[in-house]
Amino acid sequence: MLRANQDYLKLPGSYLFSTVARKQREFQAAHPEKSVIRLSIGDVTQPIAPAIIDALHRAVDEMGSAEGFHGYAPDLGYEFLRNTIAEQDYKARGCEVSADEVFVSDGAKGDCGNIQEIFEKDCRVAVCDPVYPVYVDTNVMAGRTGTYDEATGTWSDVIYMPCLEENDFAPRLPKEKPDLIYLCFPNNPTGATITKAQLQKWVDYANENGAVIIYDAAYESYISEADVPHSIYECAGARTCAIEIRSFSKNAGFTGLRLGFTVVPKELTVDGVALHGLWARRHGTKYNGAPYIVQRAGEAVYSPDGKEQLKKQVAYYMRNAEYIRTNLAEAGYTVSGGVNAPYIWLRTPDNMTSWDFFDRMLEQAGVVGTPGSGFGPSGEHYFRLTAFGTFENTQEAIKRIKEM
Amino acid sequence: MLRANQDYLKLPGSYLFSTVARKQREFQAAHPEKSVIRLSIGDVTQPIAPAIIDALHRAVDEMGSAEGFHGYAPDLGYEFLRNTIAEQDYKARGCEVSADEVFVSDGAKGDCGNIQEIFEKDCRVAVCDPVYPVYVDTNVMAGRTGTYDEATGTWSDVIYMPCLEENDFAPRLPKEKPDLIYLCFPNNPTGATITKAQLQKWVDYANENGAVIIYDAAYESYISEADVPHSIYECAGARTCAIEIRSFSKNAGFTGLRLGFTVVPKELTVDGVALHGLWARRHGTKYNGAPYIVQRAGEAVYSPDGKEQLKKQVAYYMRNAEYIRTNLAEAGYTVSGGVNAPYIWLRTPDNMTSWDFFDRMLEQAGVVGTPGSGFGPSGEHYFRLTAFGTFENTQEAIKRIKEM
Repeated sequence: MLRANQDYLKLPGSYLFSTVARKQREFQAAHPEKSVIRLSIGDVTQPIAPAIIDALHRAVDEMGSAEGFHGYAPDLGYEFLRNTIAEQDYKARGCEVSADEVFVSDGAKGDCGNIQEIFEKDCRVAVCDPVYPVYVDTNVMAGRTGTYDEATGTWSDVIYMPCLEENDFAPRLPKEKPDLIYLCFPNNPTGATITKAQLQKWVDYANENGAVIIYDAAYESYISEADVPHSIYECAGARTCAIEIRSFSKNAGFTGLRLGFTVVPKELTVDGVALHGLWARRHGTKYNGAPYIVQRAGEAVYSPDGKEQLKKQVAYYMRNAEYIRTNLAEAGYTVSGGVNAPYIWLRTPDNMTSWDFFDRMLEQAGVVGTPGSGFGPSGEHYFRLTAFGTFENTQEAIKRIKEM
Repeated sequence: MLRANQDYLKLPGSYLFSTVARKQREFQAAHPEKSVIRLSIGDVTQPIAPAIIDALHRAVDEMGSAEGFHGYAPDLGYEFLRNTIAEQDYKARGCEVSADEVFVSDGAKGDCGNIQEIFEKDCRVAVCDPVYPVYVDTNVMAGRTGTYDEATGTWSDVIYMPCLEENDFAPRLPKEKPDLIYLCFPNNPTGATITKAQLQKWVDYANENGAVIIYDAAYESYISEADVPHSIYECAGARTCAIEIRSFSKNAGFTGLRLGFTVVPKELTVDGVALHGLWARRHGTKYNGAPYIVQRAGEAVYSPDGKEQLKKQVAYYMRNAEYIRTNLAEAGYTVSGGVNAPYIWLRTPDNMTSWDFFDRMLEQAGVVGTPGSGFGPSGEHYFRLTAFGTFENTQEAIKRIKEM
């Protein structure tokens, strides 16, 4: 008899951000007169930069002409974009990554969710706790996580690596041996980073134990400190143990344009199988490339004008981050993050649960944030605010939180 | 120990169209002086229609302004597009499909590949033979197809439904009971269609046997005959047994823009589980929406100007189809398709294998087509040509084939 995917049915409740959005909708419906400020989902608010808009218009005109029309894109993405990425994101930083190791996609979320597919079902997954829910949920849907414990909000077969205040929110090497290690730095949700020396330890650990690191570097453009690595390939030996996922959403505001990429080094093998070929096969079979016009927009991100404009955009958001961080600290909150990342991680006052604090912020201040517990058990009693609002909204939100 | 997905490793050789492209590249490298005409992959060649280009420019301008900027799209797609689809593709044809049953995506290929994920691994899949390779390959990658028999090119656990000349290339109800039935009409690769009465039999069969039909209607805009259904929801009872997948690639030339959608009716359940919720969960967890500008382009497909311009575009390709069909028939080839579909299916002369004929066409005529055997064992001794070239190239290709 035909059955639905039984692993899908194991997923408890709905996706974190859908729940947050629903609560906001319900509040707004009940209080239509109140203005709600969202510092919750990591969506940007600044318009696409002029150099990218120009590139989009040019590419649109091409698509409307017989000579300039582009149909199906090459499986891995257009060379003009892959070459630029290899050159500017990697070679310029002394990292060895070639253009044909770059797989262009429609965004980091899809890649983060799909990458687990190239590994066998019995592999053991380790994640930071708290963690971006997509890493765990997609492994649940693949039947890799065992049974769910409602009391703790954890899965029996997932290795959780707590990221706690006492360790500056950096994970420690796990006691149990994982096969697949998801790392995200600068981190979502805590905004924490680790140094190159710390990351090197993870690379060494993975190589020694035959594990693969999925390194989500979606927030690298927010790094302001010198010893924080922009890519895992800055570490020696990463080419034999690490896959890196990047996004255009946060550095260039592409949340609504959709573009990202994944690097799979050719040396990276498990049990004698090159993962590059498997990921290429997935791309070729289940995907048909990012739109030509969006790939041209991606190229413009690396142009001199594009870079200058985007530096200002990142600075705009980081001014928000600093504003939130310093003002909430002054007001007595325990805050971290916001220095190399657009996320501020704050401890809830009076040991409130994350969701209680969410409700209080929404009801008393009309501000939407994201409950830390939604990111994992060690996120309980924490709360995430993002720097992606306008400066005016950010100021207003902080004013309201202070008066709360 | 970490292992690669063992089901991925079962896939024999590389994706059909990649092999075709490689052979073309090698031929071109060896004979740089020869002009090669591609009537192989189903990629369009006409530029994007003016009404759509205008919509793209407008949407790009919006993205560059503070008021018009759009970040993450709603999970299911923008309402302006979903409403238009429900209204014009369905309600206007008397089909009951509501906007919230439409899931907008970045294309039909991804949806065709991903849809199997919401079903349990033990379900039994039936496909037409020959068939669009994505249906089978994605089920291989999910571990659903058993073992591969090199001699016949078939999988032990897949139910093949031969589409043969004696039956006008329509499949017959299978003897073994399938759980999941993939149907594509107008068909890729044969260009064949079935009537509404024939499709009704499949719907009745699925409802009686608790099977689900995945109905790929990517080519519906090429239908020219009155009794050929444009949607499976024209059939009574389809809402309890059928998922429909649609594309903007063939009716509007979006192969390089990427847009499609899938309809999952709310009544459709398996073993008491509503598939609508599962597909929504997949969208929410592994996908982040089609670009805003492309969804606006999709909307323009349904505008009065867009429809008029696209009608001409479809007519342009169908003139090619008729040209290929009638000329090759005159030249003594056995041909079918090309009346309600942009594909012409021809019998190879002298009982040549499909790949031998491919090589001969490439070497003697400099024309690239697609070997029928690449679509399944019953495609052996057949060959697919597409009508998506320019009229000039199509004429030239046919001239060369005739002289071959």
